[in-house]
Amino acid sequence: MAPIYWYQDRWLPAEEVRISPDDRGYYFGDGVYEVFRVYGGALFEADAHLARLQASADGIRIRLPHDLETLKSRLEELVRRNGLQEGTVYLQVTRGTAPRAHLFPPAAEPVTLAYCTEVKRPLAAMQAGCAAVTAEDIRWLHCNYKTLNLLANVLAKQDAADRGAADAILHRGGIVTESSASNVMIVSDGKLVTHPANNLILHGITRAVVLRLAHASAIPVEERPFTLAELRAADEAFLTGTTIEILPVISVDGSPVGAGKPGPVTRQLQEQFERAILF
Amino acid sequence: MAPIYWYQDRWLPAEEVRISPDDRGYYFGDGVYEVFRVYGGALFEADAHLARLQASADGIRIRLPHDLETLKSRLEELVRRNGLQEGTVYLQVTRGTAPRAHLFPPAAEPVTLAYCTEVKRPLAAMQAGCAAVTAEDIRWLHCNYKTLNLLANVLAKQDAADRGAADAILHRGGIVTESSASNVMIVSDGKLVTHPANNLILHGITRAVVLRLAHASAIPVEERPFTLAELRAADEAFLTGTTIEILPVISVDGSPVGAGKPGPVTRQLQEQFERAILF
Repeated sequence: MAPIYWYQDRWLPAEEVRISPDDRGYYFGDGVYEVFRVYGGALFEADAHLARLQASADGIRIRLPHDLETLKSRLEELVRRNGLQEGTVYLQVTRGTAPRAHLFPPAAEPVTLAYCTEVKRPLAAMQAGCAAVTAEDIRWLHCNYKTLNLLANVLAKQDAADRGAADAILHRGGIVTESSASNVMIVSDGKLVTHPANNLILHGITRAVVLRLAHASAIPVEERPFTLAELRAADEAFLTGTTIEILPVISVDGSPVGAGKPGPVTRQLQEQFERAILF
Repeated sequence: MAPIYWYQDRWLPAEEVRISPDDRGYYFGDGVYEVFRVYGGALFEADAHLARLQASADGIRIRLPHDLETLKSRLEELVRRNGLQEGTVYLQVTRGTAPRAHLFPPAAEPVTLAYCTEVKRPLAAMQAGCAAVTAEDIRWLHCNYKTLNLLANVLAKQDAADRGAADAILHRGGIVTESSASNVMIVSDGKLVTHPANNLILHGITRAVVLRLAHASAIPVEERPFTLAELRAADEAFLTGTTIEILPVISVDGSPVGAGKPGPVTRQLQEQFERAILF
């Protein structure tokens, strides 16, 4: 079955979706987006993603073209129309189409696009863990907005791959923020530590789920800045993200984290997460 | 005459240029661009713009699809085909089209687009000067690459307009970098002062022209960081940019700069610039 896109509130085959070069998403990256997880044909944590979309849109002053309930029902219909059981839904809203000029165009209407992709859970990687490298976080100071200005993330991810790693763990002056497309958590002295949800990181949906699971299991949680030295000395480390779920980090810059294999707290949280997504 | 675009090395009417949503310019802002000035039907400082395009492309690891001489001849043909006498040429190169994933797509070919716009010289504004406001520079740390990640610039420009100003002069911790879409210079004790051309500012073509003109007139030039306090206390201030040329700043955050009108050094440089573009 050819993929069906939701574009400008219409249902179109993928090949019929064509963008104007004057779409401000193209010239300025002037838009916001979300990637939703679909398990068993259902959107996972849809309300949290939609609330974050609203926060991102408010942050860059884009008026969403539909209320969140309407958006949710459209995305649910998208999943049904594409017969998707396990995968992701990508949703993007740009400020609209107008001749190129920095100032907001007075009359432009937002351009909305969504599509599905079949994506399996990365079970092997979640089992084995991954290698990470570290890199300076050179991004702008509104990383809490999920926008289309992703070049720094792209370059960090590619640099990690070139260095033989799955991802780059970013830091600002030695303070670990997040990775190129996920949040970073460490386990140290039995405590789960992760950067506070401020303007320097994306407020990950999986991050929030994992923190709830930790609370439910009485694992102490510290949302505070932590250093590269703490990362290197941690007992365990892992990444959290919508498609990677909870991905153990077993080495950083070539040196093992803890025992060099996924640790017990990571395993416990992975099991709790698995129960949370089964239904 | 309908505008003719240069798109993927073909000549197309504007309305036939349509972009794939999988163009990485759209999802990631993964591309570089230039805006050239056209005076009297000729590209101004074309070689400098093309060299900067190459530097931007190298910076984000995009391979340009043509050598610079070929690009120049295509842009010259674009100007001819559109019969443009006075205006701008916009040229953009994205990394290519591929299903959305942060990593560079192995097989994608860059997507190249260029078009003309008729734009008159802003003579009235250059004569009268403009109001500017100040704002924190929240951009990433590679402002020397001219990329499509322009959201911070867009928001700064809009914020300035909302505050009744023509532009926002940006600063990092009190050090003036540049404005949302141009460079900033001040005149203080007879010296021309502007931020050094490092990773925190775009290396403006007009900036370079103005510095050459200053040298030619034995105006002392200091390329060094300067503070908001120095800006506020300056005798003169102006912005430099491809479309605005040399635009006097006569007030900052509502307080006059110097005498509150364009100053003599600014006027002299404007006159020299005018002679440089006439032929």
